[in-house]
Amino acid sequence: MKIGRQTHRASAISTSNEAAILVRGHDLCEELVGRISFTDHVWLLVTGELPSEAQRRVLDAVLVAIAEHGLVPSVQAARMTLAAAPEALQGAVAAGLLGCGSVILGASEDAGRLLHETVTRAESNKSMRAAASEIVGEYRAAQRAIPGYGHPLHKDYDPRARRLLAVASEVGARGRYTEAAQAIALVLPEITGKPLAMNVSAAIPATLLDAGYPLLALRGAPLLARTASLIAHLLEERTRPIGFVLSHAGAAAIDYDGRKPEGFVASDQ
Amino acid sequence: MKIGRQTHRASAISTSNEAAILVRGHDLCEELVGRISFTDHVWLLVTGELPSEAQRRVLDAVLVAIAEHGLVPSVQAARMTLAAAPEALQGAVAAGLLGCGSVILGASEDAGRLLHETVTRAESNKSMRAAASEIVGEYRAAQRAIPGYGHPLHKDYDPRARRLLAVASEVGARGRYTEAAQAIALVLPEITGKPLAMNVSAAIPATLLDAGYPLLALRGAPLLARTASLIAHLLEERTRPIGFVLSHAGAAAIDYDGRKPEGFVASDQ
Amino acid sequence: MKIGRQTHRASAISTSNEAAILVRGHDLCEELVGRISFTDHVWLLVTGELPSEAQRRVLDAVLVAIAEHGLVPSVQAARMTLAAAPEALQGAVAAGLLGCGSVILGASEDAGRLLHETVTRAESNKSMRAAASEIVGEYRAAQRAIPGYGHPLHKDYDPRARRLLAVASEVGARGRYTEAAQAIALVLPEITGKPLAMNVSAAIPATLLDAGYPLLALRGAPLLARTASLIAHLLEERTRPIGFVLSHAGAAAIDYDGRKPEGFVASDQ
Amino acid sequence: MKIGRQTHRASAISTSNEAAILVRGHDLCEELVGRISFTDHVWLLVTGELPSEAQRRVLDAVLVAIAEHGLVPSVQAARMTLAAAPEALQGAVAAGLLGCGSVILGASEDAGRLLHETVTRAESNKSMRAAASEIVGEYRAAQRAIPGYGHPLHKDYDPRARRLLAVASEVGARGRYTEAAQAIALVLPEITGKPLAMNVSAAIPATLLDAGYPLLALRGAPLLARTASLIAHLLEERTRPIGFVLSHAGAAAIDYDGRKPEGFVASDQ
Repeated sequence: MKIGRQTHRASAISTSNEAAILVRGHDLCEELVGRISFTDHVWLLVTGELPSEAQRRVLDAVLVAIAEHGLVPSVQAARMTLAAAPEALQGAVAAGLLGCGSVILGASEDAGRLLHETVTRAESNKSMRAAASEIVGEYRAAQRAIPGYGHPLHKDYDPRARRLLAVASEVGARGRYTEAAQAIALVLPEITGKPLAMNVSAAIPATLLDAGYPLLALRGAPLLARTASLIAHLLEERTRPIGFVLSHAGAAAIDYDGRKPEGFVASDQ
Repeated sequence: MKIGRQTHRASAISTSNEAAILVRGHDLCEELVGRISFTDHVWLLVTGELPSEAQRRVLDAVLVAIAEHGLVPSVQAARMTLAAAPEALQGAVAAGLLGCGSVILGASEDAGRLLHETVTRAESNKSMRAAASEIVGEYRAAQRAIPGYGHPLHKDYDPRARRLLAVASEVGARGRYTEAAQAIALVLPEITGKPLAMNVSAAIPATLLDAGYPLLALRGAPLLARTASLIAHLLEERTRPIGFVLSHAGAAAIDYDGRKPEGFVASDQ
Repeated sequence: MKIGRQTHRASAISTSNEAAILVRGHDLCEELVGRISFTDHVWLLVTGELPSEAQRRVLDAVLVAIAEHGLVPSVQAARMTLAAAPEALQGAVAAGLLGCGSVILGASEDAGRLLHETVTRAESNKSMRAAASEIVGEYRAAQRAIPGYGHPLHKDYDPRARRLLAVASEVGARGRYTEAAQAIALVLPEITGKPLAMNVSAAIPATLLDAGYPLLALRGAPLLARTASLIAHLLEERTRPIGFVLSHAGAAAIDYDGRKPEGFVASDQ
Repeated sequence: MKIGRQTHRASAISTSNEAAILVRGHDLCEELVGRISFTDHVWLLVTGELPSEAQRRVLDAVLVAIAEHGLVPSVQAARMTLAAAPEALQGAVAAGLLGCGSVILGASEDAGRLLHETVTRAESNKSMRAAASEIVGEYRAAQRAIPGYGHPLHKDYDPRARRLLAVASEVGARGRYTEAAQAIALVLPEITGKPLAMNVSAAIPATLLDAGYPLLALRGAPLLARTASLIAHLLEERTRPIGFVLSHAGAAAIDYDGRKPEGFVASDQ
């Protein structure tokens, strides 16, 4: 059974023969290993071109900013998974990444689309602020949340967002996407009646898109960064395990409110 | 129900308050973002300490060397998964990582244990070569494969292994683990009767362990590197899809040899 | 950091003490094990009530109908994953399930929503056919595909869809959702100009929803059925492996069309 | 690059043409859908043959017995994953299955191997009790845990184990594997000095292997059963969410004991 398109049959990422492995046209061993950083390589893999100094520094800053944020759900899922299945580190990393979805880390791509739409409209004879105001109004009318603004802990500002924008300025990589992100921050209080600070999920696409990183690969950056964090947590889990403490505490926080025979007393979970 | 140890209840990776996120004791925004590379951050997360220049360069070299090697099974699994479930990029990355197990990328940790055992025995009044000979003999007696030696494509040498050892020399990070890896390469033909060149799965632990990277985190390095490759392939899959071509070609390569009614003719798969 | 709602803190599925495990209020060992079928148990777990004979037979029919369909992408992903990571059967099953997304098995839930909307509109003073016509018109206007209709292989009819509807009739479980599914099949050629036969992704929600299975659990049925298929394929992979044959055939079907040095000849993949 | 064996290129599970889908030689729509239960189908998929009444009842009993056991780690991982990534139900199920590894559900296969070895040795001129004693002694000498015996909650006996053995008796499916399991239970106190009751992880392989279910597919049974439980929990998560309550309770149970600047006070997690 043939499902889907079958006409395109090529890939442009790498090839090899007995003498060499080519990655994006470069001889892996001769030109890349030992000569470029992992961040350069990520940029090369994703875009097909080696980054400029500014591009690499922006991507480094983003990956460092979002790798680790404590015992978030995806880290807990990974640590409980390793406790129960220690034979498969890759399974625990995978379980952790599966929680990097639309609610938590996935907001970067949604915010990137919002910024992209804002920049696109501002290109056609409209100020950035007018474009931002128009789009935020449309989101509100459709009762959609504005991705990348507001944070449960950091009410005033998200320090990672502020720092990412500062790094982009330092390396000279600020541009239209950051302008759009700031325009949205300005119009939000006018339209929603409350300040909603830009959070890291808007600062990531603003700085990466300004640097030339592709919109469609935005969700990859948090996944890569989170993989580093998961590896650190899973090494700790191997040496100082807390996976079953986490699951016991979770279970103890939940009551059973279903049917039960009269007089049934549940044991301590 | 309490499963497993419950007494240890702490983690040393990160904490936060409203003003700051601490990662391994460093203020994330003030000290890390924009000041260190992602590779530095990976080392910090995993070991608790920022790396030296030599340590960072070795880790960069390893991650660059093993990120990408074409349409390997894990990349194909990821691309087919994205084709079938485009709503969840994280699911496609997870599917790819699940194939980074003992047969393919997991050999690094096994090779690391072999090197560690060799180095440990050589510390107690024995030459490295004698230790290597003894251990390889034991593996042979137990009919275990020697992890990190031999390659289906690169008969003579694995260019990535050679290059990693060269980088370690350049940055002055070569030590006892590399010595052990080379001792094993020397004794293998004597014991097995055929040359088995050191492959990248032995060169990774040799160089990383010499640099001070922890043995128990060895499997994390290929997983992190492969995540970068998966992100690049999944961006390509979004823009130039081949997922269903891969699955069609796979199905077409397999015959049905089970029971069937007389005269039943299967359609082209 | 508190993310999300924290006020609701209860679960109604199971509890236990030293003497008994309760599942949905029933003593697992006394009342369920050995007394009900697995399909009864699935219905009990999902809905909170034991099924009627008709309900069980419909769920059995659906699960049998959709468990196995050859070397589909998710099966290939699972078999390649087990070949590369044989230490973790659960990882291979997980890799297979990750491909049960919106494009392939996920259409059941989308079709269920379409049927639910059709039934709901037909309740308010409108014929089912008028409701179907209205909704199909809206989908067309929004350029949305009609989930559950059309099949790349079965042009005329999908035999599994026809059989599921017949079983529902036999057990007396046909109702408004099936009526809606057939109304849509009738209006489709009028609106789109071509016949689009009802496929299994519409027959599943039609029969399950008529039987009283919950709309929000529709995606669970294909996932459960596919798990059975994956287990069978992975047992075969352990004893008659084809995982690396699949990946070799896939790679051989794809050309490299990226940059390369003049004269570079790729080896056979 | 060719990895692994390439000579075997066939599968015996299913095939199809435009008129019919064959599963294990049976016409899916004509012979299976609506005529057999899902449990029959699982047996057929896994073994290639339809089960006897006794075989089906044993498999039903096992699947019912082990599907659900409250907020175990894999259920918590799945619910947290859905809370963070609601767009991908399949990802949450996969995250849950990834925790069905060697420590928790995987013990069934290990216990099955123990029983298989016991039965095999008893076939060669030795009583079952002598075989059990010999093997338990070997496990003890190698400091290996005895898989399938002992339980943190059920000190005296595991009610699910007792019930499974009773069902096997009722349907006339008891045989040598159950005999081996009981022989091990008898010799354990003599050898270890403490009673270690047979738990469900030994009763599963004892009853399934006696019924003729294949040893190499043992790990599939808990995975299939757990999928049913996960689907029920994820439906509940969609309607009565607790995922973020679980993760908050987990985080609150863990202290930070890493480096921090003097005076740093962490906020409530």
